[in-house]
Formats: sequence, C-alpha cells, structure tokens
Amino acid sequence: MPARVWIEDLWNYVGKEVVVRGWIHRLRILGGINFALVRDRSGVVQVVDEKKLLSDFRHENVVEINGEVIEEKRAPGGIEIRLKGVKLLGEVYYESHLPVQIYSDRSVSRLKLETLLKYRVLTLRNPRQRAIFKVLNTVVDAFREYLKNLKFTEIHTSKIVASATEGGAELFKIDYFGKKAFLAQSPQFYKQIMVGVFERVFEVGYVYRAEKHDTPRHLNEYLSLDVEIGFISGLEDLLELETGLLKHIFKKVREENEEELKLFNAQVPDIEEIPRLTIKEVTGILKREFGKPIIGLDLDTEGERLITDYVRKRWGSELVFVTHYPLSKRPMYTYPDPSNSELSLSFDLIFRGLEITTGGQRIHDYRMLVEKIEERGLNPDDFSYYLDAFKFGMPPHGGFAIGAERLVSKILNLPNIRMASLFPRDRHHLCP
Amino acid sequence: MPARVWIEDLWNYVGKEVVVRGWIHRLRILGGINFALVRDRSGVVQVVDEKKLLSDFRHENVVEINGEVIEEKRAPGGIEIRLKGVKLLGEVYYESHLPVQIYSDRSVSRLKLETLLKYRVLTLRNPRQRAIFKVLNTVVDAFREYLKNLKFTEIHTSKIVASATEGGAELFKIDYFGKKAFLAQSPQFYKQIMVGVFERVFEVGYVYRAEKHDTPRHLNEYLSLDVEIGFISGLEDLLELETGLLKHIFKKVREENEEELKLFNAQVPDIEEIPRLTIKEVTGILKREFGKPIIGLDLDTEGERLITDYVRKRWGSELVFVTHYPLSKRPMYTYPDPSNSELSLSFDLIFRGLEITTGGQRIHDYRMLVEKIEERGLNPDDFSYYLDAFKFGMPPHGGFAIGAERLVSKILNLPNIRMASLFPRDRHHLCP
Repeated sequence: MPARVWIEDLWNYVGKEVVVRGWIHRLRILGGINFALVRDRSGVVQVVDEKKLLSDFRHENVVEINGEVIEEKRAPGGIEIRLKGVKLLGEVYYESHLPVQIYSDRSVSRLKLETLLKYRVLTLRNPRQRAIFKVLNTVVDAFREYLKNLKFTEIHTSKIVASATEGGAELFKIDYFGKKAFLAQSPQFYKQIMVGVFERVFEVGYVYRAEKHDTPRHLNEYLSLDVEIGFISGLEDLLELETGLLKHIFKKVREENEEELKLFNAQVPDIEEIPRLTIKEVTGILKREFGKPIIGLDLDTEGERLITDYVRKRWGSELVFVTHYPLSKRPMYTYPDPSNSELSLSFDLIFRGLEITTGGQRIHDYRMLVEKIEERGLNPDDFSYYLDAFKFGMPPHGGFAIGAERLVSKILNLPNIRMASLFPRDRHHLCP
Repeated sequence: MPARVWIEDLWNYVGKEVVVRGWIHRLRILGGINFALVRDRSGVVQVVDEKKLLSDFRHENVVEINGEVIEEKRAPGGIEIRLKGVKLLGEVYYESHLPVQIYSDRSVSRLKLETLLKYRVLTLRNPRQRAIFKVLNTVVDAFREYLKNLKFTEIHTSKIVASATEGGAELFKIDYFGKKAFLAQSPQFYKQIMVGVFERVFEVGYVYRAEKHDTPRHLNEYLSLDVEIGFISGLEDLLELETGLLKHIFKKVREENEEELKLFNAQVPDIEEIPRLTIKEVTGILKREFGKPIIGLDLDTEGERLITDYVRKRWGSELVFVTHYPLSKRPMYTYPDPSNSELSLSFDLIFRGLEITTGGQRIHDYRMLVEKIEERGLNPDDFSYYLDAFKFGMPPHGGFAIGAERLVSKILNLPNIRMASLFPRDRHHLCP
C-alpha cells in the first residue's frame, strides 16, 4: 500500500498510486461515471470514479481513497486521481442535504452572516473561509518572528483582573470565588510591569470588551497583538517600530499567502514610510477638504474613512499614523506632550479606513503617574500593584496593540470582522 | 558616542567603550571606589566606579552608563566596565530599602511564596526568577515548532462559552450581556470541531478551572498546550506524537537554556521511549510493591509519586504513560476500548510524580456520541453546535493537553507551580 499523500503534494506523484484521506467535498453521480472532489487540510482534488465505488457516499463523508495520479488539463488544478479503492472513515447523519453547500466558494460567500456563523462548524470547512485563518496565522507568526529578532520576550499574563486598566471601556464581570473580578480589556498594566523585567515584551492573547457595539468592526473578544518597549527616546521610536513590524507582516503575507490573497482578490500594501499627521492636522484636512464639522480633536468612523481617502490620493498610502491626541481623551498613563500639555504622545494607526492600532509613550515616573491618576478623580490605592513597578524604577517606555482580526479583515477586504474570528463573540453570539 | 550594547554581548567589546542601559542591580559604596552591578534584559555586569559618579544612586534606578569593557577574572562573568559617565533614566521612590533584595538569587529563593508573589513586580526582576519564563518560552516555542513541522495549524478559540465541556471541573461564571456564560475549562469542543477543518490543530491559551484546590500543583488559570489530530489509527498514534513532541521540547530546553538549568541545578530527561502501563497494571504494582490500598482504577497524588519511583528504578525513565482508564472516569467524548467496554482509549502522562497531560482518542461517530451523552444523563440539545460537527462527518481523532506551568515546574524542580506563572491566579491571589 502506498503512503498517505497531502493533496498539495500530489504533483510530485503523477503516474504513481497514492493514498489520500479527506472529506467528500463534492460528488456528482453521472450515468456511467462518478466525479468527486476530495478535500484535505491542504487542498481539493478531483477523483474520477469509473467503477462507481462512490455511488452510495455523501457530501462530507470522511474517506480514504487510493488511485493513480494523472495529469489532466480539464481537472481543477490540472491533476486528478483515478479511483481504485475507497474506505469509509467517518459517517454523516444529515437528512437529504447539507444545510449549506460548502463546495462552492461563491455560494458560501453569498451566505448571510447569520447563516455563516450558525453553521460555523461546516462553513469553516469551505476552502475560502478557511483561508482567512491561514492569513491570520501568517500575521501572528510574522509578528512574533519580527519582535523576537529584536530581542523581545513573549509573555502570558492573566486575563482575570481585579480592576479596569482604562476608564472608558466596559468590562465583563466574573464571580471569582465570591470576589468581584473582570475579564482583562488589555494586558496594559502587565506588559508595562514586564518592561521592568524583560525591557521588550509582546503578548498574543484574547482581550475582552463588554461594549454593546453591534458593528462590522467590533468583537467583544479579540486577539490583541500587544507590544511594549523600554528605553525609547520618544513617540518616534514607536512609530518606527510599528512601521518595521507591519512591513515584515505584509511581506510575509505576500510571500506565504499568494493563493489565499487570490481567493479574496486582495492586495497587500507595499509600504516604505507611513505618513504621519497630528490629529489637529487631520481635523483641519477633514474640515477644509470635505467640509466635515469636527467637534473636538477626535475621529469618527466617517473621519477615519475620509482621511484614508485623502492620504491615499495625496501620498499613495493606505495607512496613516494619527498622532498627538488630546491628553484628556487618552488613558491616565499616557505621556503628556512636553511641547503642549493639553496633548499627548499618543497615536492611532488607520489602515484602509479602520483604526487597527492604538499606542503611545507611557508615563514612567511614579510621582507623575500618581498625579495623573488623581487628576482623573481615581484613587491611586486601587492601582497599588501597578504603581509598585514605578516606585522601583522604570525606564521611558511605550507600546501599542494591533487588533489581529481587524488587520486581517482589512488585508482581505472582509465585509465583517466576525469572519476573521473562528468563533466570534458579540452581543448575540455565544455559541458555537 | 558608542552604540548601546546588550550585557550578554559585552565579550565582543573588550577594550572598547560601550553604552549599557539597565537597572542598578546592586550598589556597594566603598571608601575610595564604588562597585555596582547593572542589569539589563540579557544579564548582569560589574561596573567599577572610581570617580564615585554613582554615590547618590540607589538600587533599581534606571541608568545609562558608558565606559570601557575590561577583562577581569575576579568580576562575576569575567568582565567589568570602568565607568566614565552615567545618566539617570528612571527614578525610584521607596524609602530606605527595597522591600525585598533582588540581587541575591539565594535570598530571593528563600522568600516565602506569599512574599514572592506580593512583590511580584520586583521579584520577577531577579535573574533566577526571570529564568523560569525563559524556559517556559522555550517550551512553548518548541511545542509550536514541532507541530508546525507536522503540518498542524495553530488556532485561537473563544474562552467565553455557553456550557461546560466536561462534567467534573467547576467553572467561573460570567455575566455575558445578561446571559449566563462561563470561562472555558479547555478548548476541547473547539479543537475537535477544528479537526473537521484543518485535520491537525493546536492551541496555546489560557484555560480556567474554578476548583478550590490550594495545592502546590494547581492554578485556576493555566496555559494549556492543546493538540488534536485527525485520521489516527488508535491510542498508539497519540502516545507516539506526544513522545516525539516531548523529545523535541526537552532537546530545545537543553540547547537553549543551559544557563537557566544551571541556576536551578536541573537536569532535562533524555528520553528515547516512554514506558506505557495500563492503569490496571499501575494499581497492581502499587499494591504489590508498596502495599498501597487502591480504591477503583485511579491514581492519587501519592500514587503518581510512587509509580514514578517504580518506573525510574525499573526502566530509568522519569516519565510514564498510564493508559486505559475506566470509561466512567473520563469525559463523555472518550472512545471506549474495543476490547473492554468498561475501559477507554485514554491516557495520562506522569512526569516526576506529576500528571502533566491528559488525553485520548475521541468518539467521532455522531450516533455513538449522542448515545454516550445520554448515558451520562446529559441532554444532547445542550451540545448541539458541537454535535453538528459530527453530523457532518468527522475522522477518527484524538488529542491531549500539556499543562505548560506543570511541565516547566517539573523541568526546573520548582517547589510550587505558582512560580511558573507570571501573575498566578488562585483562590487567594487576584492581583498583581
């Protein structure tokens, strides 16, 4: 018996007999002959069944087949298997039809989001849907690889916390052995504390926002790619770090996901520099160029879209750093701009109309941090373990976080961020 | 001005002037001269301060120093820096002394666990404590690397779930927009569902157990290294996969953490094969060799320790697979042993007296799974999204999970598992 071969490797076996294991992706029972598509983790191959061995099989049956690999121009992918034998490995138990047809990329991509999510265990088997997570993996791996080369240390910090790290976002409450606790909205405090230990740290982990948003761009549980670095000389270092990081991520996606990009007709930006505008400049542009009335130095969804259009036309860039937000709009640990104490050394990164990163320099001086906490009407005692790190010496530092699903959504031009999460959590979806 | 150099690279700069940034790890103000140790992410170096520039500095001050690198046999590590200049980058705000002395490995290792955790933001800066997480990173990276080479796909699945995946363990409750939800006790259901998509998957993520244990071997939040693989021919494949995986992990730790292992005087097992015993054989041995009374086919803490002693003496192995637990003691998705329906195709892996893995083959047939759910008095409707995956065809599959902190604890012979978690969560610790 020949060894099992992955479908993606079949080209190396033309003229030879192979064993393939997988699912009956599609089955066409014709008069004198059956045609099947068989799917494994790596691809889909056409199977020609002249002996009609597959006549009693059904879509999504799990099978082991053997047969000869033949070059055949008319077959999808240019190759097919002439079936010699088949073994059933997994039975199916649906009635007449699968609830959704997953062999057709087009019909899956036309499904309503609600249906796509309802039959998630099935729709994820569609090669085009599955491709999204190959891109997500490339993004996460490239993130990890780039930072490790710069001597960053990966950390894993607790997602059960006693208090909020930021005033604004709402938190999910947990009953922690009778004590009140929350799901972490970010590893912010911990990654800063860990700068005191490893200087340069990153974390890949879920974070939780109990916001009631029901938009195509919000998830209540999302994969946060967090970075924090010590011994910076200012905001500039952070913008450069993220530029280099994104260059690397985009390069890797371009190299490793050619096929996946094609399925979504997607282009990865080829960046050299990312334009930088202060929020003041941005609101000025929006008012002047688009007549957009601006209330305060902030950007709404439309503003993010418009400034993307402007930057694309003006500088040919699909990304733009927006910097120096008002201090009052940023968390209490944000470093004030030395040249204007109303503003802060903070930034957002907007990619194709969507904010994918928030970051900034942090306050590293204990006294200044206590002062800022008090100015916000908060009690420093509630942050004592966090403040301890600063009492015991912290370097100038800063960082940022990239929303992984947002980045992938924008790379692939997905209409809804939920498509980039295997089992998305929102107000209405708790399972699967 | 010369460029910044990591302390670990100083040997390449003997006779040259360098800039080093870090923390004042230790400072000795002597009559005519000061001696300091400076610590960065990569190591500690002695600094000789003949001009007494450091006299007003304090432990944990963050500094940038410059000076010449000199080979000096009496210095720790054989090298020292003759200080020329220093710049303060981060102030400290404690009163007379740090609450714990972190420059001495010995004094930190003698701290009570309670103190070690109370001053976590400081004690993690101790190079020996910090080393634990370098080993943890090697373990996680090696896990990922080995599985990727075998074409496994990394997944990230939701930690907010609507129902328990296993009957036994208690769950943390979350208020999810007014609905009852729980923190996932394992990615079990999701990793099985994803076998239907990617055949071979793994996940590195926190899982949650609301058990009230207060032992040196339990955490309420721990890093689970989860594996699930389709198209297996039986339990054997899983034992082989984990053996290969652990071989690789141990090899990587041996190669990359020589220094860290030395700090803990730790030896990594050099495994070829891991002995396999059924739980029936194990309880027989315990009764015969140690006169241990056994109630049912199960192992308690003492039993795990005794069988480790036995296996070490008999086969020179520090690991042992214990297989074929009674079906009734395993979750409802466990595959029954075809040769004895009271038993199951399940296993635990015991390493130096501690269970570090639970795993087994899973039921892949929809009807059999529904039957087993009903036999346990559970309602299949409560598992409908999970059962859907089986309705739509699943291959024979199985998997296991390694507790990352348990594995690291045992590699380094740590007295308490909490030492292998940056910010451990137990009944009494919710912060830091």
